[in-house]
Amino acid sequence: IGEQAFQRGELVNSELAALTYGALVRQLVLDYAHPQQVNEQLDRIGYNIGLRLVDDFLARSAAPPCRSFAASAEIIARVAFRMYLGVNAKVAHIASDGSEYSILFDSNPLAEFAELPEPMKGSLWYSNVICGVIRGALEMVQYSVQARFERDILRGDDCNEIRVSLVRELEERVPTDNEI
Amino acid sequence: IGEQAFQRGELVNSELAALTYGALVRQLVLDYAHPQQVNEQLDRIGYNIGLRLVDDFLARSAAPPCRSFAASAEIIARVAFRMYLGVNAKVAHIASDGSEYSILFDSNPLAEFAELPEPMKGSLWYSNVICGVIRGALEMVQYSVQARFERDILRGDDCNEIRVSLVRELEERVPTDNEI
Repeated sequence: IGEQAFQRGELVNSELAALTYGALVRQLVLDYAHPQQVNEQLDRIGYNIGLRLVDDFLARSAAPPCRSFAASAEIIARVAFRMYLGVNAKVAHIASDGSEYSILFDSNPLAEFAELPEPMKGSLWYSNVICGVIRGALEMVQYSVQARFERDILRGDDCNEIRVSLVRELEERVPTDNEI
Repeated sequence: IGEQAFQRGELVNSELAALTYGALVRQLVLDYAHPQQVNEQLDRIGYNIGLRLVDDFLARSAAPPCRSFAASAEIIARVAFRMYLGVNAKVAHIASDGSEYSILFDSNPLAEFAELPEPMKGSLWYSNVICGVIRGALEMVQYSVQARFERDILRGDDCNEIRVSLVRELEERVPTDNEI
């Protein structure tokens, strides 16, 4: 269903998007002294994007409602990544209590033209906006989470990995029709 | 041919791209005191994007080489806008000596969610990065130009209009096979 929703949505060329995102990261690198602060700003920007994107996502994706936090993993990996980034991702390393999972993906259009300068290789998470988007979007469906990069191909890792950890469920959710 | 090249290229969701671009503009508004400086920074960023995008454009678009500056208008409007922004644009107001033209377009994915705060309505050209992209890309094919917004739907105008003016041709161009 990610593919259909992707095709139904309005699209722009990924190279333009990658270069625009690169300009944003570069501006933040100029503005903040420490890469860690740039990571935080990218997370904050992504969080705000996630808050706005989730309505669009729920309307267009036709994804089933999350029955549990763990179920959000497949929806993010298989539907949301396909819909917004045009790439396939998969779920791995699910904690036995279902409170943590990883999203793995090889191709990352945001980083298409990016190269990290040597001093930033150990500190900047270039695509950290994605973590913020996941955090913001999940918060809107009542899951407060931490999301952070564990691996990034830009840093020389063999895969991109984002680790998502449930902090808490935000309130009693009203059961949907499907759940009654 | 813009449509085919658009479909061939990698694509991302335009809402994500619009929100990312919005974050870039917002960051620049925070960084610079005057909207005019933000316009200049967006133009500069776009210029750098245009320098990089032009190779991709020439490789993928299969657009015919520009026989004249005036001929670049149709290629930008009909091919490049379609390829990168997924929208249709048209050419208007061509100067009688062929040294200026306007690109008109109604739909602007970059500005999809944008609203200008009242004090910026007369001063910020929100999508000014596009002018920079045009300037950078044309410079790579030996046309030094000025490009500036004349009208913007975000400001309440009935259409988006970018005016492109030839400053000078940069050097004697080697004739292509088609031109000999």
